[in-house]
Amino acid sequence: MIIEGKNVVLEALKNNITINKMFVQNNLTDNASNQIIKLAKSKGIRIDFVSKDMLDKKTSNRHQGFVCYTTEFEYCEVEDILNIAKQKSEDAFIVILDGIEDPHNFGAIIRTCECAGVHGIIIPEHRACAVNDTVLKTSAGAATNMLIARVGNINNTIEILKKQGIWVYCLETGGQEMTSQNLKGAIAVVVGSEGKGVSRLSRELCDATLSIKLKGSVNSLNASVATAVVVYEIVRQRG
Amino acid sequence: MIIEGKNVVLEALKNNITINKMFVQNNLTDNASNQIIKLAKSKGIRIDFVSKDMLDKKTSNRHQGFVCYTTEFEYCEVEDILNIAKQKSEDAFIVILDGIEDPHNFGAIIRTCECAGVHGIIIPEHRACAVNDTVLKTSAGAATNMLIARVGNINNTIEILKKQGIWVYCLETGGQEMTSQNLKGAIAVVVGSEGKGVSRLSRELCDATLSIKLKGSVNSLNASVATAVVVYEIVRQRG
Repeated sequence: MIIEGKNVVLEALKNNITINKMFVQNNLTDNASNQIIKLAKSKGIRIDFVSKDMLDKKTSNRHQGFVCYTTEFEYCEVEDILNIAKQKSEDAFIVILDGIEDPHNFGAIIRTCECAGVHGIIIPEHRACAVNDTVLKTSAGAATNMLIARVGNINNTIEILKKQGIWVYCLETGGQEMTSQNLKGAIAVVVGSEGKGVSRLSRELCDATLSIKLKGSVNSLNASVATAVVVYEIVRQRG
Repeated sequence: MIIEGKNVVLEALKNNITINKMFVQNNLTDNASNQIIKLAKSKGIRIDFVSKDMLDKKTSNRHQGFVCYTTEFEYCEVEDILNIAKQKSEDAFIVILDGIEDPHNFGAIIRTCECAGVHGIIIPEHRACAVNDTVLKTSAGAATNMLIARVGNINNTIEILKKQGIWVYCLETGGQEMTSQNLKGAIAVVVGSEGKGVSRLSRELCDATLSIKLKGSVNSLNASVATAVVVYEIVRQRG
């Protein structure tokens, strides 16, 4: 993948992502740039200093002087997510995305989950956005520090999680108002796709449906916003 | 302004936005389309039924068969926001955007605020995104149902609100963790720009700084996500 931008490259370096090639704009002297260059050098990464024009040609987005070529994103197994929770002696805290298609939504959700201490994100292999350059950029680099598992069948995964004692909630309108529910303990939240919400079968497999209070005329929140609101309600209850 | 898309046009109709011209794609038969067409006719709006090709030429975005030309967005006065709270016999609930520049962030914030029952949004006249077609579209039409005031000087407005007994919080890292604070009563939250946060003077004028718990390596949330998380914490506390 191509990654670009100061924050994204810095996060990639901090999280030991394999960087095959690194291009940095000539004559950058600000503190943030110096910090990134120093960190890259300390990790033995070879840097090619090039003109801004050359970077502009490599990428269409805002590179802020930094463009790297990394290996493809490495997905984890669901087991890895459960293990990291165990290692931290914390109850599992998982977000399942049942078909998010917009890379900006997916990136925003990863950033929120990373900030909130979610242990991992599970996405389906098909009919969903994968981790790509746009997702990584929108996540402000958080994707390099987040366990993301890609599974063939979300419903099988929900059943596996339930057998592990994890309480699986579906996030949709028409359920229990989230602040009235006890969201402590091991938990997974299933968030539906932008257009269709959570699929019927997944919803039926969930232990319960959580909803966010809506008072206006527009009767739904953006998918990444809804995820953030429920994730932070869980953070609040966990204290 | 040009507005397009089923949800946006439906919200505009429901909120009595003046529609000068309405173009609808020929031969739409789904329920949502029928509902919009029926509502428009009941309001005496003349509809031109045209081909999909013609709509594609009018707009570059996804129109879903509906394109309308409306009057320019009408901003309100700060006083109108305070009055609507009084009319509803509710404590004022205001979001102040101190320089949000990205129309997608601005639109997402409007959508969240409309869903959460915020009485109004205040933005500065300069160095900030105004309500435009992209904002309206991203808000899923919520902008047509939200009071938005544009002021010459955010700091003067903060002082006016404080004199009215409204508690003004600044949303930034390094302050009081939001869930530990009493956020009931008349409240305004100042959200800073994507790059620079809340300006120093505005921050100093605020009664206190609220923060969201961050546990990850990426040390900030997206502006629209952060706004949603704090707005829904206020909704929770208000019960």
